[in-house]
Amino acid sequence: MDKQTGKTVRERLVVIGGDAAGMSAASQARRLRSADELEIVAFERGRFSSYSACGIPYWVGGDVTERDALVARTPEEHRARDIDLRMGTEVTEIDVARRRVRARDVASGDASWTSYDKLVIATGARPVRPELPGMDAAGVHGVQTLEDGQALLDTLTRTRGSRAVVVGAGYIGVEMAEALLKRGYEVTVVNRGSEPMATLDPDMGRLVHRAMTDLGITMVDDAEVTELLTDGDGRVREVVTADARYPADVVVLGIGVRPETSLAAAAGLPLGAHGGLLTDLAMRVRGHEDIWAGGDCVEVLDLVSGQERHIALGTHANKHGQVIGSNVGGDYATFPGVVGTALSKVCDLEIARTGLREKDARRVGLRFETVTVESTNSAGYYPNAAVMTVKMIAERRTGRLLGVQIVGREGAAKRVDVAAVALTARMTVEQMTALDLGYAPPFSPVWDPVLVAARKAAVKVRGT
Amino acid sequence: MDKQTGKTVRERLVVIGGDAAGMSAASQARRLRSADELEIVAFERGRFSSYSACGIPYWVGGDVTERDALVARTPEEHRARDIDLRMGTEVTEIDVARRRVRARDVASGDASWTSYDKLVIATGARPVRPELPGMDAAGVHGVQTLEDGQALLDTLTRTRGSRAVVVGAGYIGVEMAEALLKRGYEVTVVNRGSEPMATLDPDMGRLVHRAMTDLGITMVDDAEVTELLTDGDGRVREVVTADARYPADVVVLGIGVRPETSLAAAAGLPLGAHGGLLTDLAMRVRGHEDIWAGGDCVEVLDLVSGQERHIALGTHANKHGQVIGSNVGGDYATFPGVVGTALSKVCDLEIARTGLREKDARRVGLRFETVTVESTNSAGYYPNAAVMTVKMIAERRTGRLLGVQIVGREGAAKRVDVAAVALTARMTVEQMTALDLGYAPPFSPVWDPVLVAARKAAVKVRGT
Repeated sequence: MDKQTGKTVRERLVVIGGDAAGMSAASQARRLRSADELEIVAFERGRFSSYSACGIPYWVGGDVTERDALVARTPEEHRARDIDLRMGTEVTEIDVARRRVRARDVASGDASWTSYDKLVIATGARPVRPELPGMDAAGVHGVQTLEDGQALLDTLTRTRGSRAVVVGAGYIGVEMAEALLKRGYEVTVVNRGSEPMATLDPDMGRLVHRAMTDLGITMVDDAEVTELLTDGDGRVREVVTADARYPADVVVLGIGVRPETSLAAAAGLPLGAHGGLLTDLAMRVRGHEDIWAGGDCVEVLDLVSGQERHIALGTHANKHGQVIGSNVGGDYATFPGVVGTALSKVCDLEIARTGLREKDARRVGLRFETVTVESTNSAGYYPNAAVMTVKMIAERRTGRLLGVQIVGREGAAKRVDVAAVALTARMTVEQMTALDLGYAPPFSPVWDPVLVAARKAAVKVRGT
Repeated sequence: MDKQTGKTVRERLVVIGGDAAGMSAASQARRLRSADELEIVAFERGRFSSYSACGIPYWVGGDVTERDALVARTPEEHRARDIDLRMGTEVTEIDVARRRVRARDVASGDASWTSYDKLVIATGARPVRPELPGMDAAGVHGVQTLEDGQALLDTLTRTRGSRAVVVGAGYIGVEMAEALLKRGYEVTVVNRGSEPMATLDPDMGRLVHRAMTDLGITMVDDAEVTELLTDGDGRVREVVTADARYPADVVVLGIGVRPETSLAAAAGLPLGAHGGLLTDLAMRVRGHEDIWAGGDCVEVLDLVSGQERHIALGTHANKHGQVIGSNVGGDYATFPGVVGTALSKVCDLEIARTGLREKDARRVGLRFETVTVESTNSAGYYPNAAVMTVKMIAERRTGRLLGVQIVGREGAAKRVDVAAVALTARMTVEQMTALDLGYAPPFSPVWDPVLVAARKAAVKVRGT
């Protein structure tokens, strides 16, 4: 309300970034406040809004046949809900003092200032792309955006090659290895570390390594790419490491991502040790009453270690957007933090983790015990019962659960959710032994694998 | 230690019942105390020890081909670990005052007293078997014990009939309907209630009803069996209800079970409202220092309602046995209670529940809100994404989670474990909205169905 006229003043919310966090925030704010009360302008430099980047490997691999299936809501759909979403428009500057952003039409180059009452920064993450010779050659692809995925698919369709090299063996690397395998490629994964999935402890990563090798994927460990060689047309032909060369008709980069916070940094907004924006529990940028941030560009509180982390994951981005939109819209919500749950798969091998790895626990000063158990996803006598390996980490003395990693077949990955809830509730492994987890022969042995691990961990903690 | 001689006195542990609870207790006690310190004598009236009764439907249905696969540990294996397991021996009396039990060899009828220092009662449950004409006819089978399963399989093999009637539509009923369907029978399920799975609320039971009908199972609702008609040879031919007659070459009874506590009752041990033995948290029979009880013959504390319940489930029986064995063996363990988690399936329909149903909540004086959401087991765009229905019940005002029911396809059942842990931790639905549950497109939509339900429930609680 304007104090002098008594009329409702229409505020303007500006959103930078048209994907999960930004558009969830915009949509939730719109649900709570009508267009008469709140104008919403959103800028997205790309061609797509609100899409599932996590779905790209399954689109490239052919499980998902339509690109548009990955788009949760199109620009037109957002506009139909009174969100002024401007595609192909890049924000180049945030002027915090004068509460405005400068945006440039990517195609025309035209730029102008737009003022805001409230600002949401959802600029996402950018892939790590080492500056090496040949990195910009044709046939070298990241898979961060839908545009990236389309470009890779175009290459796969056009070149009809047979050899693919994936650089990096984290989530994106292993998922893209599966995708390229499904497309009939001979796949080589070049990995800096000794095991894939560095988000697991090495002993669990080894299980993934074995499974990938069994799938016919060539795993090149402890290898650093030094150069990409191209042919006369500027197309990539070989991936070079210190020790060897790997022929490649296509190269996919999956080396990881960093928070995209160059705009925020230039505007003097607070960044954390991992380069992400720092927010409070309401997802408001620290020290700034009317600026919110969420998604892959922020750091989140790890509830287990008590420290900030950077995790680029669609599910967090959506939650952040929901929280921001609720607060901007005049309601109330918080994002208390994460416990670090993440899932992945390579063909039928399921990979899950939550909480701290051994090295995380060590780094934050925790002493711990670890146990690893082998069990099965269903009763041992049930058809196709498959081995599941569960590693559990518990604090010494207190017995508090610190982390769980699971590698197995069907039904393995989502079992980690039990540990995610237990971590949130700060349960001890002793308490976990009594959990009333679902049992029936098709779904679990009579002692669920997580309970078996908890029992063994509890015994070990008691002995220390 | 004997105070006068200074020698270790060898105590005798007597166990009544050679299945999950009894033999888990015996095994765990043996792990902790050697045969020099503790003699263990166990009586089992049947022919099998330590077997999975929950596996019987999958054996009858042909998923499990060997009966012995259901036996976790044979009598010989128990004896090899210095447990004097006497098969075919029924305990007929417990003499608490003189610390002894009377046991009778079922074959010879010979009976004698065996004294104990410590006693474990693990007499299990007995199936409800209404006293109706024809109930004892050939071709009418319960499926409580491995002997029962064998008898049913013999009938199925011998008679080569085509029509099966299952009486009862709880876990056993629906699982046996699947088993008989797999064996090529036309299956009719006669159910007292209007929906199968009375352990769910009727609105969720309706989903199971529809799926069973779609599978070609004839569902007869609101029907009470009044009589079984037999042919000249005394074989069952028809199942009769008040309204109709159903031809049957075989009849399977799945009407439920009651705690088998006639021995305990005769001995004056304390029974609860559901007819089960009452124990303390260490699984000791209340008021009796040296008598423990566990498994299907006891009542357990429901941590959500704060009241005792009777739940016959192998996973609880195993935990009870573990706790009893630890305490008898001189270690320490407790069984704090259950939240009422149970899973089942009919072909590829998965059914799960935990916590309170609406009527349970009402009965214990709780006011609540309910929400039901439809979501999918994986990202909507992922191949074969299947609908999953999640019902959530939360207490008014406090927002505490009270119960969750899930019906869906692959990946539905074990999702209820998240709610089981949240119930144990007494979380509110508001707290649950922030849970860091595992996300990747093959395993979950970006908002896990449980989170979608929690968000909706939190909104509803706030509005009240």
